[in-house]
Amino acid sequence: MNKIRIGILGYGNLGRGVEQGILQNKDMELVGVFTRRNPIDIQLTTKDAKAYHIKDAKEMTDIIDVMILCGGSKSDLPTQGPEFAGLFNTVDGFDTHANIPQYYDAVNDSALKAKKTAVIASGWDPGMFSLNRLYAEAILPKGKGYTFWGKGVSQGHSDAIRRIEGVADAKQYTIPIEEAMDRVRKGELPDFTPRQKHLRECFVVAEDGADLNRIENEIKSMPNYFSDYDTIVHFISKEELEKNHSKMPHGGVVIHSGKTGLNDENNHLIEYSIKLDANPDFTANVLLAYARAVYRLNKEGIYGAKTVFDIAPAYLSIKSNEELRRTLL
Amino acid sequence: MNKIRIGILGYGNLGRGVEQGILQNKDMELVGVFTRRNPIDIQLTTKDAKAYHIKDAKEMTDIIDVMILCGGSKSDLPTQGPEFAGLFNTVDGFDTHANIPQYYDAVNDSALKAKKTAVIASGWDPGMFSLNRLYAEAILPKGKGYTFWGKGVSQGHSDAIRRIEGVADAKQYTIPIEEAMDRVRKGELPDFTPRQKHLRECFVVAEDGADLNRIENEIKSMPNYFSDYDTIVHFISKEELEKNHSKMPHGGVVIHSGKTGLNDENNHLIEYSIKLDANPDFTANVLLAYARAVYRLNKEGIYGAKTVFDIAPAYLSIKSNEELRRTLL
Repeated sequence: MNKIRIGILGYGNLGRGVEQGILQNKDMELVGVFTRRNPIDIQLTTKDAKAYHIKDAKEMTDIIDVMILCGGSKSDLPTQGPEFAGLFNTVDGFDTHANIPQYYDAVNDSALKAKKTAVIASGWDPGMFSLNRLYAEAILPKGKGYTFWGKGVSQGHSDAIRRIEGVADAKQYTIPIEEAMDRVRKGELPDFTPRQKHLRECFVVAEDGADLNRIENEIKSMPNYFSDYDTIVHFISKEELEKNHSKMPHGGVVIHSGKTGLNDENNHLIEYSIKLDANPDFTANVLLAYARAVYRLNKEGIYGAKTVFDIAPAYLSIKSNEELRRTLL
Repeated sequence: MNKIRIGILGYGNLGRGVEQGILQNKDMELVGVFTRRNPIDIQLTTKDAKAYHIKDAKEMTDIIDVMILCGGSKSDLPTQGPEFAGLFNTVDGFDTHANIPQYYDAVNDSALKAKKTAVIASGWDPGMFSLNRLYAEAILPKGKGYTFWGKGVSQGHSDAIRRIEGVADAKQYTIPIEEAMDRVRKGELPDFTPRQKHLRECFVVAEDGADLNRIENEIKSMPNYFSDYDTIVHFISKEELEKNHSKMPHGGVVIHSGKTGLNDENNHLIEYSIKLDANPDFTANVLLAYARAVYRLNKEGIYGAKTVFDIAPAYLSIKSNEELRRTLL
């Protein structure tokens, strides 16, 4: 069997997760990691792979089947996505929901011209949660879907706190409100404000002599991030943050409640939930499953940008269609 | 918008569920119901639709876009599936897992010859549960998946009890064992015997003067159906059965537990669960979502038998791809 030759662009938490995930997929192998740093400073876990400078990637289009883009959605992917989809089949986890349509168009144009295939906005949300919103809505059109996130660390909210003057470090947990989930599970179909669905809990390390009251007020009143939520702020020591808050757990649930029957007399509930010890590892594994899909679609001559909505589930599995029907159907 | 013109073959619980489900999908309309009974005896809920004898179906291939096959997997579908896939685009919920490969081949041959498209083995298991087994296994290959059914009425087990001499009527509930689910949720990856996963609870109406001990023993010792499980038998009155056990609730959960990290140090849990007031209604709605897919696939020239594994999620939704990316991704 020819293995799918994977490249990794960006070697942060997600890139390292992809490197480890490749070891779980016996039809894949890592060719190299591409970075803006000096490649000599990068220590890979995989023995047979090498670190390269990002500018060398374009010389390696013949020996990489799929490039996994592990940069951030804010400043890396908007340029890297379209650029690399013109050179490689790609998979990314672009997660700025509001900008997906324009990102899709840019990557699609570039991939179509180069006869490449690019899966965008993969991962768990967008990604597996999106899939479950779609399936549930299609099955129970007379109903309503809800997404709850957490309990888990939100990187974006943690970063926002760190930008406040006087903050040395911080972690923010997004916590779904049980009472809200219970109301959905009872079939109530409620409308929620952000405050009714999620709570935000912050663990903050302040710099020496910083004004804690001011920091707490700045956090709680920050628009978009915190002002619409009940927010709890704890000031803790650097040691405590490292000891108790160094991991990146996350999770969440998509709940869809719907009705059937001539008089809407029957309630139905669909729930998809995940509970993750390590958010980047899980996201990485989703990207790898879609790397398999991208590889196969490209071989079939199906080009352009795709999302999880456009890809038949069988493309993600290492098993043949015949084996899938026999063992998993 | 041209509506998708639906035909229903078989007017039992599932067929009636499909008829009601069509009302929830504004891109669909019911043309007719086909039955082996005298059509005059069939009272439809839908005003503009008619009941026809099954033998008239073959004259109506021009005015039906998708025929939903609502017969049983034991004696109806093995012949109706291949036969109708040679005349119409079809969707069915064939659920005899062991016979899916041969059923697939028969339907596929017939559909390919007629340039029709046929989704087989749709519903929730096989169907949505199968999908979730596949997605989870592809994402967490170093892991293990578990399916628990219930609490809900198993039609097959209820029928098996009714065939025992001296039994007037019966309902059987399949009940998942909480302790087993909890072990999976803890990340233990246990191997279970059937007895460790599910309990079987039976409500039996005996005929006057029947030997209750013999009936109970016959149930508990019945191979495949009951002998591998802890089984509870209650004898109740006909009135009690009708009052408390006339509905068809069901449900279940697919749980996949997997590990990541260089030393398998991170646990991840994916759960997909459903809780249904009316099993046939929910199954009907899944068949209708796949009817939309079948209609579109056929228009694109994609013929033959398909399963839920072969169909990209976007085909199930009434929304356009652009709208899906904008609103659900």
